[in-house]
Amino acid sequence: MKSFQFIAICLLTVITSCHSEKTLKVDPLPSWNETTSKHQIIDFVTAVTDKNHADFVAAADRVATFDNDGTLWTEKPIVQIQFAFDRVQELSKTHPEWQNDPIIKAVLNNDLNELLHFGKEGLAKVMMLSHSGMTTDEFDETVSNWIATAKHHEKNKSYNELIYQPMLEVIDYLKENDFKVFIVSGGGMDFMRPWAEKTYGIPKNQIIGSSIKVSFEHSDEKTVLNRLPELNFFDDKAAKPVAIHRYIGRKPIAAFGNSDGDLQMLQWSASNKKRNLQVYVSHTDDTREYLYGRKDPFSKLDKGMDQAIKNEWTIADMKKDWKVVYPFELISDTK
Amino acid sequence: MKSFQFIAICLLTVITSCHSEKTLKVDPLPSWNETTSKHQIIDFVTAVTDKNHADFVAAADRVATFDNDGTLWTEKPIVQIQFAFDRVQELSKTHPEWQNDPIIKAVLNNDLNELLHFGKEGLAKVMMLSHSGMTTDEFDETVSNWIATAKHHEKNKSYNELIYQPMLEVIDYLKENDFKVFIVSGGGMDFMRPWAEKTYGIPKNQIIGSSIKVSFEHSDEKTVLNRLPELNFFDDKAAKPVAIHRYIGRKPIAAFGNSDGDLQMLQWSASNKKRNLQVYVSHTDDTREYLYGRKDPFSKLDKGMDQAIKNEWTIADMKKDWKVVYPFELISDTK
Repeated sequence: MKSFQFIAICLLTVITSCHSEKTLKVDPLPSWNETTSKHQIIDFVTAVTDKNHADFVAAADRVATFDNDGTLWTEKPIVQIQFAFDRVQELSKTHPEWQNDPIIKAVLNNDLNELLHFGKEGLAKVMMLSHSGMTTDEFDETVSNWIATAKHHEKNKSYNELIYQPMLEVIDYLKENDFKVFIVSGGGMDFMRPWAEKTYGIPKNQIIGSSIKVSFEHSDEKTVLNRLPELNFFDDKAAKPVAIHRYIGRKPIAAFGNSDGDLQMLQWSASNKKRNLQVYVSHTDDTREYLYGRKDPFSKLDKGMDQAIKNEWTIADMKKDWKVVYPFELISDTK
Repeated sequence: MKSFQFIAICLLTVITSCHSEKTLKVDPLPSWNETTSKHQIIDFVTAVTDKNHADFVAAADRVATFDNDGTLWTEKPIVQIQFAFDRVQELSKTHPEWQNDPIIKAVLNNDLNELLHFGKEGLAKVMMLSHSGMTTDEFDETVSNWIATAKHHEKNKSYNELIYQPMLEVIDYLKENDFKVFIVSGGGMDFMRPWAEKTYGIPKNQIIGSSIKVSFEHSDEKTVLNRLPELNFFDDKAAKPVAIHRYIGRKPIAAFGNSDGDLQMLQWSASNKKRNLQVYVSHTDDTREYLYGRKDPFSKLDKGMDQAIKNEWTIADMKKDWKVVYPFELISDTK
């Protein structure tokens, strides 16, 4: 009898350990200090995933959207503009006729301020020269090679090492709780997709952004999509809810941004009848990252900050709320 | 000793049964006859999912795209045009001023041929009147109500009962083999998403199609997307690879269509360096469904059929290859 009891217990233990869920409570956001922001995020996820909670949301409706520049990675400088500069400098070697173009000269001098004197036209020209005139496959390869080798001038790190560890933890935490996570960025989606899928663990089809026009070409010799020097969609401000509608088809219950360009995405999410969460990352840390806010020329958080305060949205204050900023700090961390 | 051996065997059995994969072999495509088409589909899936096969494809790259009208459901009549007719007839009750418009008259007479006399302009007007001038939420509700109540005039079935059982089996078979399945349709994505997610088991963000422009409106009272009477993207022919690039970001290894409008999608998939599969559904069954092909005014399979023959693509011949066409036949089936 005893041996059968023992067998029964053994079997039960194995079956239970096979099928039971993890019950160990681990901190889902270990790089966040124990401040209000962290608790607001955890309270939200706990409520919407608890079947017995009044705010429960079915898994299919658990959609979260994240801006990229300044929300998931450092945007000083804006990485895609740095890519465009590097690319135009490279291409100019085989285009001596460009030397007399003052717009190109600004790029060759690595002088963004000089380029900005030419207004929208200047930046648009540089973006088109660097982003079009090749197939989609060729552009993919160009971006992949660049991101693998380029370094941030001040921090001497690859750009995709300059991602925010606390935000990676939020993405993972949401995914573990059956959220579908999307990037909805003003940046180019063809610029993000070659590296962002692996870097953030978000599938390519869930990485949404701005795009230029492409045209299909088919012959017996080749079948390609050619990148054309014409903007298709600029995924910023009021265009973000439009992109969310087209690409996702559901209103997010959680939205994360860092600038006025994300305000409409956060408003769209805040209009969800289900319980919802809005988070603004605030760049308050001039030691570990950068300090900018209401007056930044590229990525100001002004109207957005007013609304965040008025509506009691979550402010993720880099300096106060984050134990570390970048993943590589974890390795060198003595704690 | 003996009891410990027994315990060990018990434990091993339980552990093995916990972790082993299903080994029962079931027919993944039971509604398909044992013809070449079925075997080509199964051979393809078997090869690309077998780690030891030269044609193995990693799960992340297993992307399959399906047209909708005539590929997944019956397109006689084109369902979205029928919706537009019903909607304009409904709206005209509160718009007496429309009575004198010859385009509207054609719709009130339920006469598509008469409408087509007005060229593209006629159909475009009817589509815009029926699809715009409301918020995205209101349109979603309108479509949901319509699909729940409207019936196919000849077959007296709901339109989303007139889906193809053999194709549902292909979708499920691909999903079970870690394919990500997308619809890439000429039909409106906002017309498909309210019902297609549930009907086909494909998430809304993987349902891609044509779209009209929408605009974001935010005030203290409301936050909405308004549907505008202007085409944004017509997802047909050479636009299908463009949509695939934008919405999926990967070239499919399998593509399914039924008309020349799908040809470029199949060409795009066929240009994949990985092993790939192209399938054309051929409407050969005038008893169970409809008989049409090279000369159909809305959905001809002419150039596409030439290329399918030349390139030895798979032809799913409804009459020869399918045991049943619609799911409801299974219930009444005596077998």
